[in-house]
Amino acid sequence: MVCVGLDPHLEAIPDVLKAENSSVEEVLFTFNREIIDATADLVCAYKPNSAFYEAEGDAGMRALKRTVAYIAEHYSDIPVILDAKRGDIGSTSEAYARAAFDELGADAVTVQPYLGADALEPFLKRADKGIFVLAKTSNPGAGEFQELTLEGGGQLWQRVVRRVATEWNGNGNCGLVGSGRSPETLAAMRALAPDLPILVPGVGAQGGDAAAAVLAGKDEKGKGLIVNSSRGIIFASSGADFAQAARKATEILASSMEPSSLS
Amino acid sequence: MVCVGLDPHLEAIPDVLKAENSSVEEVLFTFNREIIDATADLVCAYKPNSAFYEAEGDAGMRALKRTVAYIAEHYSDIPVILDAKRGDIGSTSEAYARAAFDELGADAVTVQPYLGADALEPFLKRADKGIFVLAKTSNPGAGEFQELTLEGGGQLWQRVVRRVATEWNGNGNCGLVGSGRSPETLAAMRALAPDLPILVPGVGAQGGDAAAAVLAGKDEKGKGLIVNSSRGIIFASSGADFAQAARKATEILASSMEPSSLS
Repeated sequence: MVCVGLDPHLEAIPDVLKAENSSVEEVLFTFNREIIDATADLVCAYKPNSAFYEAEGDAGMRALKRTVAYIAEHYSDIPVILDAKRGDIGSTSEAYARAAFDELGADAVTVQPYLGADALEPFLKRADKGIFVLAKTSNPGAGEFQELTLEGGGQLWQRVVRRVATEWNGNGNCGLVGSGRSPETLAAMRALAPDLPILVPGVGAQGGDAAAAVLAGKDEKGKGLIVNSSRGIIFASSGADFAQAARKATEILASSMEPSSLS
Repeated sequence: MVCVGLDPHLEAIPDVLKAENSSVEEVLFTFNREIIDATADLVCAYKPNSAFYEAEGDAGMRALKRTVAYIAEHYSDIPVILDAKRGDIGSTSEAYARAAFDELGADAVTVQPYLGADALEPFLKRADKGIFVLAKTSNPGAGEFQELTLEGGGQLWQRVVRRVATEWNGNGNCGLVGSGRSPETLAAMRALAPDLPILVPGVGAQGGDAAAAVLAGKDEKGKGLIVNSSRGIIFASSGADFAQAARKATEILASSMEPSSLS
């Protein structure tokens, strides 16, 4: 169930890599490649967040594209979830879907719900791809809108979950984004959407307890969760042993979610 | 009040430009540059939508960066609104703000409200930059969530407007995104936010009536709107005269919004 977030803040990447590689593109890609090679047998997905690549301009975008291609070439059974939180309308939404799926080659993408299903149609119609809809986020102020109570009862995020589960998932390619910092809302989300995969950021560096998240959010078969950790894994060490440290952190996270560890 | 949307769908760019320029980067940048040179004395802003550049990979991102730099160099009094509809949390939101403002050099950016103000703090704290918050979008299904009625009254989009106007705008750098296809909601938005600039897409190719939008949404001084047209201007002609045709379409849109044309 472990997903590793490939979010290479350039300033946090070990100096040894910066000394060995002359370009930003090579630094970012080499860092990712070493993390991937060290963790691939332990993970169910990789999740690069587009922001960290965009922040480095076209060099960053080349590193992102090479990272996705590297996973596809060497670990073709591991899907790449592009965390881009896109949301736009019409031909623009079409261009975003093309950018994520065709230009970058991602297997799934995260999207914003605020504009509604018709805006996301270019994503939803891609039956071969995954779409994770933001429902409940893990930031402290997430409740500002997500927890507003609607006329007739229920909160906004619950309405989002219900719409995705009952209306948007015609192609069977939808999932949700929950919060690893709130097992209660994960349990409520699972009750509303028994069959949807839930992507759970917010464990590890963000403070959430992975075991509690799994207990609260797993489906009937004990699966259905993709638990993401980014900084807690990829920056487990700032030294030359960063890849081995990432592997160790991944193993610790994975074992904390083993059925035998859960009570 | 006219804003030109620089949304260069590669396939819609006149063949003459594709014949003259050998790379995608040059085609996109040259198209934009000619549109800009032909319209700069008529517009209050340019609004490139990130999606169309991302869809062309790193070549697209280079064209976008060069476009923003070109406007800054030659028409430094015209702001660039990066239409990116970003929304993420914590260090990721920080990276998006850096990508938009520092890496690309945009003067303003569009953002998603769903994650709340704390998620957008890296944008909101940039007092020298503009932040346009999606409130009411112009797609047919925008109401799916935006028009949900909240307990205690009012719709979700109205709550977003009120929060932005009363809580988020401490640095005086916030604006809203309204819908050019719904003068009624623009009038209601103006009533809730008398002083905020409103970016109004949805006129022209999307079917909205610019004059009706201006009448409904202008502030007390008859200003406060940024009315965007993209395809209706930049693809006014598919021939070698595309830039002159864009100028003409911009003039027509601008004159339709002149006080003397409004009744």
